[in-house]
Amino acid sequence: VILVNGTASEYIPALDRGVAYGDGVFRTLLLDKGRPRAWGEHYAKLLGDCAALGITCPHQSSLQTDISNLAREEPNSGIKIIVTRGIGERGYAPVVGANACRIALSFPVPDVYKKYAAEGITARVCELRVGFQPRLAGVKHLNRLENVMARREWTDRSIVEGLLLDGTGNVIGGTMSNVFIVERSVLVTPDLRQCGVAGVTRERVLRHARVRGIDCTITSISLQRLLGADELFVTNSLMGACQVRILGEKSWAAGNMTHTVRRWLDDEDR
Amino acid sequence: VILVNGTASEYIPALDRGVAYGDGVFRTLLLDKGRPRAWGEHYAKLLGDCAALGITCPHQSSLQTDISNLAREEPNSGIKIIVTRGIGERGYAPVVGANACRIALSFPVPDVYKKYAAEGITARVCELRVGFQPRLAGVKHLNRLENVMARREWTDRSIVEGLLLDGTGNVIGGTMSNVFIVERSVLVTPDLRQCGVAGVTRERVLRHARVRGIDCTITSISLQRLLGADELFVTNSLMGACQVRILGEKSWAAGNMTHTVRRWLDDEDR
Repeated sequence: VILVNGTASEYIPALDRGVAYGDGVFRTLLLDKGRPRAWGEHYAKLLGDCAALGITCPHQSSLQTDISNLAREEPNSGIKIIVTRGIGERGYAPVVGANACRIALSFPVPDVYKKYAAEGITARVCELRVGFQPRLAGVKHLNRLENVMARREWTDRSIVEGLLLDGTGNVIGGTMSNVFIVERSVLVTPDLRQCGVAGVTRERVLRHARVRGIDCTITSISLQRLLGADELFVTNSLMGACQVRILGEKSWAAGNMTHTVRRWLDDEDR
Repeated sequence: VILVNGTASEYIPALDRGVAYGDGVFRTLLLDKGRPRAWGEHYAKLLGDCAALGITCPHQSSLQTDISNLAREEPNSGIKIIVTRGIGERGYAPVVGANACRIALSFPVPDVYKKYAAEGITARVCELRVGFQPRLAGVKHLNRLENVMARREWTDRSIVEGLLLDGTGNVIGGTMSNVFIVERSVLVTPDLRQCGVAGVTRERVLRHARVRGIDCTITSISLQRLLGADELFVTNSLMGACQVRILGEKSWAAGNMTHTVRRWLDDEDR
């Protein structure tokens, strides 16, 4: 089922600025027994991302109604929410008073994600270098061609994720995830003020770490530094925290910290 | 009228990767008495841009049929063509064998464009700095949030265009145009190998200059250099070549070279 502005529909207007310019934002989250995980944080992020682009965010109640309607069909699934600036005249200038368009849909979460979380994954380093754009950095917007182009670099199905570096060689994240490294029990995650997407699960991990007194650093991480870390894990709302066990020629044993982080998330979600 | 894969429709699939990721490219061109201007060059550019993203470009004949059908309704108008990668499963990896979606529509060209061409325009320098991304540079793709954000910087209707600089302060283009400066009868236009859109009208101007023995340089252009130029003009398929007469505190008298360039284009289009 796909809901467009609350109504079941498989279509959106061809003149929507979402398709014309990628002028919108999105969320991906997990529906667990009909309940959207970390909903408060997802809605807060959606609000912030809409504000960054100057898009009027749909009311929380509209989205909650959409999610309830999707949950009735598929109580255990993934949910994707897209908010675009809506229909616009031709030209880049946003139309004043344009009505945002919201799309909500559910999709089956691949079974293999549980295996990824339990056993860890194999990743690679992408050749594409993410461009700097502080005006859009952190926002999960619909301009995702960099991710598409990076994801096109490999077809080997044993490789689950590709790490993205910026132009100066620092690690920014994965094509569909945020990245953490562990250095002597300290969590370190990339600074995303110049580029990258600051995901909700990343925020949750940072919050848990603070509450539990685990040191956390947000800073630049070179590939060399990452390769020397005790653990490497990636996060997103569908997989939670997922250890990278193999990255090119480097491999890591199963790590305690990733396991701990996953437990923080699972305990909160229970 | 909007044609989606050749059929009149105001809608596209909500699952199209055009809206999900801005995963596609587009063209804007002028229909003059039912004839698309510089069609050969526009189709060649569409082919090249699709190839850059790994999208199968629609056959020329399909697009020509679309344009003929639009021309029957509005023989003098603007035409926009969008080609997306089409419907995809969730996730960045392009689906093998996905069918590109093509959208063709016509729109009225604002009357004021003739005045812009005849009298020149006022422009400003945008604050947003365009990010480097050589993998996408030159391509007119659907990831246009930088242009949207730059265009949101002003509402003054007397300002027609905003110039975009890159992170090192070099001029890349306008929000909806390419940029040329004139230095002692030499044409100079920004190098677009790191970012920017290499438009068809820019290519046409470069071709005419070569044929007519006018020197042309493609290089980095600092804002200071641009401000010291004898003339500054912007190009796109709707306005042709349009002189910038006022840029912030700087103003230029009507320039001969811009006039000449416009005549090259007009003569060819006649």
